[in-house]
Amino acid sequence: MINRLVEQIKKKNAPIVVGLDPTEKLIPVYIIERCIKEYDETLEAMGEAIWEYNKGIVDAIYEYVPAVKPQIAMYERYGIPGLVAFDRTVRYCKEKGLVVIGDVKRGDIGSTSAAYADAHLGRVKIGGSDLSVFDEDFATVNPYLGSDGIKPFTDVCKEEKKGIFVLVKTSNPSSGEYQDRLIDGRPLYEYVAENIAAMADELMGDEYSYIGAVVGATYPEQGKALRKIMPKSYILVPGYGAQGGKGADLVHFFNEDGLGAIINSSRGIIGAYQSQKYSSYTEKGYADAALAAVKDMKEDIAAALA
Amino acid sequence: MINRLVEQIKKKNAPIVVGLDPTEKLIPVYIIERCIKEYDETLEAMGEAIWEYNKGIVDAIYEYVPAVKPQIAMYERYGIPGLVAFDRTVRYCKEKGLVVIGDVKRGDIGSTSAAYADAHLGRVKIGGSDLSVFDEDFATVNPYLGSDGIKPFTDVCKEEKKGIFVLVKTSNPSSGEYQDRLIDGRPLYEYVAENIAAMADELMGDEYSYIGAVVGATYPEQGKALRKIMPKSYILVPGYGAQGGKGADLVHFFNEDGLGAIINSSRGIIGAYQSQKYSSYTEKGYADAALAAVKDMKEDIAAALA
Repeated sequence: MINRLVEQIKKKNAPIVVGLDPTEKLIPVYIIERCIKEYDETLEAMGEAIWEYNKGIVDAIYEYVPAVKPQIAMYERYGIPGLVAFDRTVRYCKEKGLVVIGDVKRGDIGSTSAAYADAHLGRVKIGGSDLSVFDEDFATVNPYLGSDGIKPFTDVCKEEKKGIFVLVKTSNPSSGEYQDRLIDGRPLYEYVAENIAAMADELMGDEYSYIGAVVGATYPEQGKALRKIMPKSYILVPGYGAQGGKGADLVHFFNEDGLGAIINSSRGIIGAYQSQKYSSYTEKGYADAALAAVKDMKEDIAAALA
Repeated sequence: MINRLVEQIKKKNAPIVVGLDPTEKLIPVYIIERCIKEYDETLEAMGEAIWEYNKGIVDAIYEYVPAVKPQIAMYERYGIPGLVAFDRTVRYCKEKGLVVIGDVKRGDIGSTSAAYADAHLGRVKIGGSDLSVFDEDFATVNPYLGSDGIKPFTDVCKEEKKGIFVLVKTSNPSSGEYQDRLIDGRPLYEYVAENIAAMADELMGDEYSYIGAVVGATYPEQGKALRKIMPKSYILVPGYGAQGGKGADLVHFFNEDGLGAIINSSRGIIGAYQSQKYSSYTEKGYADAALAAVKDMKEDIAAALA
């Protein structure tokens, strides 16, 4: 799947992933109102609103971007109906040829991580049947529990030819509280990165590894150092746009081949219609506004890399 | 809710939480076969089998233990039908008067953690309605992203009078890879514990705080040090039984008042019927075997604390 991700990034000339993180504030009011009319004030109404909103965006952008990254928290927030919308979204995006990165940030002790790996990347055996479950192409993984929490994911990746992005240095303001702590003069996140680099070597696609990392756009200097530590890992870079990361900051996350990083934008794309710049699209044109924002983001990154 | 947990622990004289972690290997074959007969080889069949298995155990033990801890990964593994079984289990346990600790180990950047907090402990607003979602009493939280990933949970705890257990030192073999790294001569987990202690002071119940910690039974010496750093936090202690933690190791996790720790056992209880010791119960008697194992665990811990 890393080969397919790289191929799609090259083909669409866009190292971009769109974060499908639907929130009540981002979904156009007319969609929510229509769903409440049909389903009352229930979790089902929000599940349906999320699905309708996502479908509009996916239909507008799928030819222009290689990948999407649904953040499962935004779906889990609405319980079972929200997770049904997650499931539908993943399936629909795959039908449209998009690579799906499940932003699930799971991680637990061995046998429990194995259950998460089965749920998001693998399959489960029921009687004589092998069934896939949420079936994303990639998942994000939290490393706090150490390598025996990550290995069940890499085992499934090997079997299914899928991939993971392990949290290394996250984009949020307090990410340094533990991640930046110095151990023998070096920050913790570099140790995490070294372990990822070792795992990455063991699970290579054609050019890049199935095992990638998450490093926030808001920390470009750290990105520069981490790029060197994990030369074969794709870096998933959140924090561009709404969180403050700028195009010019992104160059450090790429290798000299122009590959090796994929930049995420969520609110900046899916909520573009709410910003001054794209306000002419209005609420009804939210999907077209998202496409316009994708095109601008593509140019911004291309200019930074030129 | 911490007051209720403490009260129930005292009343039932059992600082015990039963981990409801249903796996295909633990569920009696006759239950799985019956569900496959009814639902074919589908995720629904496993969802139904999980629910039936859990209900049997809960009916047997609810008068003897204060709390249960469903591990959501084991339900998520079977997709939507699995999560429906999680939802039903949480509701049923609450009906039976049990305190429910959702072992979800969520944790993300601010707004995303807020979505998880709403899903598991809080409520969501849809139109003019405030709806609870999975509605556990406590949730476990991963601290790798720092305090702005935890604060949304503490905000919801304050509002709903619920609680969290933050991962400090986990029970698995590789937990030391990052958690034990020395920073100025002290392990990382002690810094996490100090932050928890500060948060705990800000959100006190009557005797203990709404903010607790997870420390594995497999690391008793570390538990001793951590008990002192977080005097007002309940410590949720996994790793007893199947993972190797012994009754005698547990004394360090308690305060002198005999409180402050709640010991989890999962496989050792819910899969007791598969062990030599309880084999006379047979598969059909899995729930009675679970109760016998609960009673033995209670004695083992009481002896250790005496």
